Amino acid sequence: MGYAGHVGRLLEEADAAVGDEVEVTRRGRTHRGILMPHHDFSDDAIVTVKLSSGYNVGLCLEGESKVRVVSKKLTKDPIRRSLPTDESKKDVAFIGTGGTIASYVDYRTGAVHPAKSAEELAFSVPELMDVCNVRARVLYSIYSENMEVNHWQELARAAASELNSGASGAVVPHGTDTMGFTSAALSFMLGRLSGPVVCVGSQRSSDRPSSDATMNLLAATRLCVSSDIGEVVVVMHGDISDTYCVAHRGVKVRKMHSSRRDAFRSVDIDPVARVEGSEISLLSGYSKRAAGPVEVRDKMSERVSMLYFYPGFEPEHFEMISGNVEGLIIAGTGLGHVSEKLVKPISKAVKNGVFVGVTTQCLYGAVNLNVYSTGRDMISAGAVPLGNMLPETAYVKLMWVLGQTKDPSEVAAMMVKDLAGETTSRRSV
Amino acid sequence: MGYAGHVGRLLEEADAAVGDEVEVTRRGRTHRGILMPHHDFSDDAIVTVKLSSGYNVGLCLEGESKVRVVSKKLTKDPIRRSLPTDESKKDVAFIGTGGTIASYVDYRTGAVHPAKSAEELAFSVPELMDVCNVRARVLYSIYSENMEVNHWQELARAAASELNSGASGAVVPHGTDTMGFTSAALSFMLGRLSGPVVCVGSQRSSDRPSSDATMNLLAATRLCVSSDIGEVVVVMHGDISDTYCVAHRGVKVRKMHSSRRDAFRSVDIDPVARVEGSEISLLSGYSKRAAGPVEVRDKMSERVSMLYFYPGFEPEHFEMISGNVEGLIIAGTGLGHVSEKLVKPISKAVKNGVFVGVTTQCLYGAVNLNVYSTGRDMISAGAVPLGNMLPETAYVKLMWVLGQTKDPSEVAAMMVKDLAGETTSRRSV
Repeated sequence: MGYAGHVGRLLEEADAAVGDEVEVTRRGRTHRGILMPHHDFSDDAIVTVKLSSGYNVGLCLEGESKVRVVSKKLTKDPIRRSLPTDESKKDVAFIGTGGTIASYVDYRTGAVHPAKSAEELAFSVPELMDVCNVRARVLYSIYSENMEVNHWQELARAAASELNSGASGAVVPHGTDTMGFTSAALSFMLGRLSGPVVCVGSQRSSDRPSSDATMNLLAATRLCVSSDIGEVVVVMHGDISDTYCVAHRGVKVRKMHSSRRDAFRSVDIDPVARVEGSEISLLSGYSKRAAGPVEVRDKMSERVSMLYFYPGFEPEHFEMISGNVEGLIIAGTGLGHVSEKLVKPISKAVKNGVFVGVTTQCLYGAVNLNVYSTGRDMISAGAVPLGNMLPETAYVKLMWVLGQTKDPSEVAAMMVKDLAGETTSRRSV
Repeated sequence: MGYAGHVGRLLEEADAAVGDEVEVTRRGRTHRGILMPHHDFSDDAIVTVKLSSGYNVGLCLEGESKVRVVSKKLTKDPIRRSLPTDESKKDVAFIGTGGTIASYVDYRTGAVHPAKSAEELAFSVPELMDVCNVRARVLYSIYSENMEVNHWQELARAAASELNSGASGAVVPHGTDTMGFTSAALSFMLGRLSGPVVCVGSQRSSDRPSSDATMNLLAATRLCVSSDIGEVVVVMHGDISDTYCVAHRGVKVRKMHSSRRDAFRSVDIDPVARVEGSEISLLSGYSKRAAGPVEVRDKMSERVSMLYFYPGFEPEHFEMISGNVEGLIIAGTGLGHVSEKLVKPISKAVKNGVFVGVTTQCLYGAVNLNVYSTGRDMISAGAVPLGNMLPETAYVKLMWVLGQTKDPSEVAAMMVKDLAGETTSRRSV
């Protein structure tokens, strides 16, 4: 179970194994909970215990300390329990996809593995059952950096099917790495929603004392039960302490920090909502629940690339890539610029039927290709400025648009039209 | 001069031309200054006048208003004046490169063109001469999106030569689009500095009422005259009003908004200094002026690319690009990840002698390839994690490192070593 040194000996003497219910006494205080595995990032002196609240605490066993087994774990297999149903509560669907939030979820045994069954997913945070009737299913379990179009499509269909069979909302536990891409894909694929589709992740896995998994999942669930939101949103911590969560519009959100719990930020727009405990505050305009049924339009082209421009960007690389795709999103500098050496290759690509859309690598603010001659040359070459659409959202949108039509003028018209709140008027950061 | 409608008629009646000194009276107040050309973005009712302070004001001429010519402009040619010299003042070098800050600079005539001579550059903001003896030269005048390695090299040599001939600092007016790339290049090319090298830009050209050019140039100049900083920094507005400027370390700064005046942000680090009027507050650790002379090591490889990863990133595109370069910087998701489909292409590239460095597209926070199996696979394939180095800084650094050595283990050692403050311990955003 990974514990070494003094802590390892203490546990051995107590005959305590991961998954046992234990009492740990140190500094005059006793904590009772399930013994969790040692985490690589924890100090050797720390033992991790999952309390009955669902939270993990890290207890430092330096000095006088005692461990006692209250009850041995019942079985090595994942526990099978039937999910409770309460007619006074609404149904919420949980659609597992993998990622940190779905890792180390076996609540009772402490086993470290991704959720493989609906029960494991549901019982990873038993508090969910106080808020709703849990409908859980594990669609797949992958690291989000391996997500591809077929995963987005399967997920869109699953979310629609849950909403259309009466779920008050769908919660999608998801790896954080590409969660913003997935939320954008769902936003375009799913028509007018009868309830929220909430992508939710965690930056610390649930075997770690500082995990944000439980709070994020609870906030996501509350949005499904108690809000009238009919949008795809991303729910994560709003600050680095456990004060509140924030719901970001699926097409305007980006992971802006590699490790902080409040890594996700709404870009160029206010978040949709703030969730503090059971309190939901709506912060900006949003689409309300529609009557349904939810339609799925999940066709996508995979022949799209995204290029962040840099000084010295090689025209021959641009030509190689643009010769191999149906559409291209450029993240230009400032107002959307590229070097003059790329203007001819852009023109050539457009003449060959490739859609070339322009966003800004600044991320915040809109493109404007009318201010400088570089931009005007890009427009003459056929590049299409995309307002303040995030490069990543523009990439996903272009895949989706090219799944709906191949007609160049229709593609351009759909790309500049606001379909899911992806282009907005500017706001101060 | 571009003025139409009511304003056009008023100016015509007054026989006022761009460059004339005029008095404009409206709402009971009179403003005196040089008549500037109409700006495309201004309302038709607005006339722009450059006050003697150097600031432009936009005056709305709706309702009762009067224009009177005080004196006609002297000549249509750029005015030639000799630069004053005051032995009690320090010398500061101004090295013009182009960009918005150097546009529309003819102070007296109001002519709209980039600074073509040292005098034009100097007299674009005459207040500079109150602070220092101005040594001005125009190195070139290009949009910064067209900057290439040879421009960085020429600039590094010019800055070193000015410092080595007694300048207290070098101010580099620069287009904002790629200013962060240039400041990074100068940081690596220039050895221990005897004074600051200050890249400075503006987000609003100086013919616009809201221009930030004057204030940014003055703040940059004050850093050269009154600070002991021996680093390459970027100076821009610190907020959206004209309250203060901020000096960012050249290797930790990124343009994070396409249009705001405070678009530049220090990423994962505090700014070096805050400049409010003539007050300089030092905010974080920095390198102090060295004894000199400043050495230039300006060799760079242009065979380097940068790739922002996205779901569905095409392995064949990776192979095409990595087959054509000496080094590659990946901006991965989250802690630095790419999809498992790219692990083999990475391994192949490394085996072929291509350096593959890993940064995060989150921009804030560090990479860590030891947490998840994807990252560990990337390390096994030979990818090198680069801490919290910005992708753009890592790209420039790799060009520079490959200009110093082609030995793979030396390249890797130099890339992970902190050379100019580009990798720092994490701070909260």
